[in-house]
Amino acid sequence: MTSAKHKGALAAAPKAAQALHQAMIGAAGPAATGMSGPLSVPGTVRWGEKVLILGAGVAGLTAAYELSKLGFDVTVLEAQKRVGGRNRTARKGDKLYEIDDKTGKTVHTHTCRFDDGLYLNLGPGRIPYHHRRVLRYCREFKVALEPYVMETTANLVRPPKSDKAWPNRRVANDTRGHIAAKLAETLVAKDAFTGEVRDLLRLFGALDIDGKYSEAKRSGYLYDPVIEEPFPVPAPPLTFEELVESGFWKASFYQPLDYLWQATMFQPVGGMDKIVDALAHQARLAGAEIVLGAEVTDITILKEGPEVTVSYRAGGQDHQAEARYCVSNIPIPVLKGIGRTGFSEEFESAIEAVEFAKTCKVGWQANERFWEGDFEGVVGDRHAIYGGISWTSHNITQMWYPSNDYFSHKGTLTGAYNFKDKAEFLGKLPVQERLNLARKGAMELHPEFGKDELVPQDKGVTIAWHKVPYQLGGWAAWDPSEESHYEAYRRLLQPEGGDAFFVTGDQISPLPGWQEGAMMSAEYVTWQILGVMPLSVPEVVAVPDSVALTQGMV
Amino acid sequence: MTSAKHKGALAAAPKAAQALHQAMIGAAGPAATGMSGPLSVPGTVRWGEKVLILGAGVAGLTAAYELSKLGFDVTVLEAQKRVGGRNRTARKGDKLYEIDDKTGKTVHTHTCRFDDGLYLNLGPGRIPYHHRRVLRYCREFKVALEPYVMETTANLVRPPKSDKAWPNRRVANDTRGHIAAKLAETLVAKDAFTGEVRDLLRLFGALDIDGKYSEAKRSGYLYDPVIEEPFPVPAPPLTFEELVESGFWKASFYQPLDYLWQATMFQPVGGMDKIVDALAHQARLAGAEIVLGAEVTDITILKEGPEVTVSYRAGGQDHQAEARYCVSNIPIPVLKGIGRTGFSEEFESAIEAVEFAKTCKVGWQANERFWEGDFEGVVGDRHAIYGGISWTSHNITQMWYPSNDYFSHKGTLTGAYNFKDKAEFLGKLPVQERLNLARKGAMELHPEFGKDELVPQDKGVTIAWHKVPYQLGGWAAWDPSEESHYEAYRRLLQPEGGDAFFVTGDQISPLPGWQEGAMMSAEYVTWQILGVMPLSVPEVVAVPDSVALTQGMV
Repeated sequence: MTSAKHKGALAAAPKAAQALHQAMIGAAGPAATGMSGPLSVPGTVRWGEKVLILGAGVAGLTAAYELSKLGFDVTVLEAQKRVGGRNRTARKGDKLYEIDDKTGKTVHTHTCRFDDGLYLNLGPGRIPYHHRRVLRYCREFKVALEPYVMETTANLVRPPKSDKAWPNRRVANDTRGHIAAKLAETLVAKDAFTGEVRDLLRLFGALDIDGKYSEAKRSGYLYDPVIEEPFPVPAPPLTFEELVESGFWKASFYQPLDYLWQATMFQPVGGMDKIVDALAHQARLAGAEIVLGAEVTDITILKEGPEVTVSYRAGGQDHQAEARYCVSNIPIPVLKGIGRTGFSEEFESAIEAVEFAKTCKVGWQANERFWEGDFEGVVGDRHAIYGGISWTSHNITQMWYPSNDYFSHKGTLTGAYNFKDKAEFLGKLPVQERLNLARKGAMELHPEFGKDELVPQDKGVTIAWHKVPYQLGGWAAWDPSEESHYEAYRRLLQPEGGDAFFVTGDQISPLPGWQEGAMMSAEYVTWQILGVMPLSVPEVVAVPDSVALTQGMV
Repeated sequence: MTSAKHKGALAAAPKAAQALHQAMIGAAGPAATGMSGPLSVPGTVRWGEKVLILGAGVAGLTAAYELSKLGFDVTVLEAQKRVGGRNRTARKGDKLYEIDDKTGKTVHTHTCRFDDGLYLNLGPGRIPYHHRRVLRYCREFKVALEPYVMETTANLVRPPKSDKAWPNRRVANDTRGHIAAKLAETLVAKDAFTGEVRDLLRLFGALDIDGKYSEAKRSGYLYDPVIEEPFPVPAPPLTFEELVESGFWKASFYQPLDYLWQATMFQPVGGMDKIVDALAHQARLAGAEIVLGAEVTDITILKEGPEVTVSYRAGGQDHQAEARYCVSNIPIPVLKGIGRTGFSEEFESAIEAVEFAKTCKVGWQANERFWEGDFEGVVGDRHAIYGGISWTSHNITQMWYPSNDYFSHKGTLTGAYNFKDKAEFLGKLPVQERLNLARKGAMELHPEFGKDELVPQDKGVTIAWHKVPYQLGGWAAWDPSEESHYEAYRRLLQPEGGDAFFVTGDQISPLPGWQEGAMMSAEYVTWQILGVMPLSVPEVVAVPDSVALTQGMV
């Protein structure tokens, strides 16, 4: 897909970028760290040039911070009364709005009624260890991080063709054992189950000396240890036929193996929005102005003078702003609805080609952490689940247990996070019906969800991101099998009006749906504005596979 | 091994035990939780009967707490100046002692010189989610727990036959992929690589549509994402031959799959000794007296009157104590060296049969967390390791990265945790030579260990548990293949002198080397004293496999 020449040119870019980044860090030093010494301003920095950033999502805020540090005069226009975009954490009193399917009007669907101190991330919820930009900003801004546990062997999976949920440890280890044993069997038949290969297969699959998977040693105990009793007595293995018949892998069971997820990740202590709060705070410290409640209505690229004019409504009045540069963090489906003048035909075709993905979440407050155990005999069937995700073929798709405040009394769970048809179906239902459906899915994993006193309906929250005003979707649904996406993706990487108007966000990054992608894009646009990164994009670019990058192998 | 009759009898025991435990929790309620209401004392409780507990290890303290709550008059004699036994956390100023191989005398080997606020667990370091007793006491005593990460895919393995270290994600996923592909190949040959089995194998191993493992999609990226570039580009797979040749699985690579370990476990915030501190505090609140620096010299079981007399030295003077019950938490190798009168021949044979395992640890203070990344370009080759263990065939066996205070500047690592011959070899070396050897092993994983300014030698600590006075080993080395161990294990479960003298500890539990085993044993002895659990043990009992239970499959 990428020519050798193209490869060569790109190989050079990161070096220039790195040098620049060092310079940026250097320039930021005094302001950001309070270090003394002379201000080291790289030659590329131009003081006072005006930048208008449209949208205070992760990319918009990152660009605002970086460009302000470099001396640009930055104003951010944000339509909502809060920063962060899809980076949103629900707490008591937070109001949720969606666009009504029939009227097309924005309605207040419900208000979060969690108890004080409880919260749930409605958008991004985890950070892999290799998302270095997100981690670096957290470290720089002292956003405390704690492990987000994606998988524990106590989590459950309820396969499509099964009427019960199995613990992860049984499904994972028994499948592993059977596959190793089946390979061992073919080797035994050839007298080749010997030496190092035998040793490896035995340790890989917990096979016995003959290559059989007869004891599920890693899958848990048949009963808890008792003094005098033989111990540990392994749980009986599920048969390979049972496992195959169940179709468990179709319920995203292997997603945590993907490099983007992992068993342990990170989350900010206190909610994902700590990141956007810190970004906004630091951007302001660096000189950026962030105007909330400013809804952009029109963008005009001028041929001369100030390069871009933006009209917006704020405080019930119409305003206009002008700037040398305009960086749009507005989600493309929203941008489609905003007046545009002076844009190229290619740009117009590009934004028409991009769809955003449908995705819903449901959040529950539980008044007891019954999934963690039965320490006081209150409730629970002793799952001993501490964080991680249970998977199900039910519409809810997955259940996230809290990775914070283990062993405390109350907790919040993500009671649905689904995609495509399932998200479309769930999103069409009114809030109470969504909660009813999600509760049924949850009961298939934990019967305790049947008790309103444990999991109160009036404290449930739900969001259908594709119906949320100013968002209209979870992420750009890029698809490398769509021919039109190549030209669209390429076009959106290039500024309009020479170097006047830039699109930013995870929507135009190799990591759609990830904050790291948003920050990468903000960095890229910053470099384009500084002239370090060429404004024209190679003829052939890669298109991200949004499904794989947000949901893993399917 | 266990007769049907024996099974039936035991099946009943846990129920009685559960009922008793409920009663115990009931009795503890008012004191422990501050709840009001009348004290509910079960009929079995006898006020004021004297119990002497020898040794303030986890089992001794647990028994002291539980028996005190039940109304017994409990005194704990502890030879050392601290409680906890092998549950020990090293901090600045802590002195380490070992018995000199030649002279047999206890010598002060070194003093921990960690910076203020740093600490390292020298004994137990992690708690699985199914060790319910440990977790329950932590919850009851408000010992804050945080995730202990045992495995991340960024951890390294340096196999026996390789001169470099590979990331876990490559070794784990490439092995998985190749094994699945090899099985797929045999199925393809039989036209059986179809339908659900094909789907499962593909997801299991990340195989392509033809069942080949051609792209290591889960093993990490070839390079970090760059805008415009094809992404993600998978790391090239290691070949199956390379993997087999390396012998990586011999370096305990698969230990985290074992049910006893897991990728995520728990640790107390601030050090494992928070558990024994809390147990000691609560035992004292419940009325127990804990005498530190009291070294037992003789134990005599009397036929009449007070049942046991214990002689001990404390404050330079000889003392004697008498009690109705005596519970010995003294490690068996230490007990062997204490005068004993009135013990049965069978008991004497039993303690002769038990050996304790050799095991060493090394701890490092690092002045930069170079393994976590290169945020500021200081050091590090961007491993992005946050917790978990790297494995090596070097003497050090394993390297534990801190699971606490991620993203801070300094940190402590477990730079060796080894067994058997390797522990014997390391333990024979003087402290500085141990640190030199451990540093070499660490450098094979991270060259940064070569820099004294990053990992200062004078802040290293080391312990050879088999040489530590009052401990003399890591755990009882029970071995089900040793005929003599059956009678020994059985005998030590029964009290001596009727119901006068009891042995407790993980040393006589199904979980040697684990705090849960110590607590199980304390519970068992408590039930025996209360008469809930029969004093005579079934004729045939199971013997724990200490190697498997402390090191997993080997």
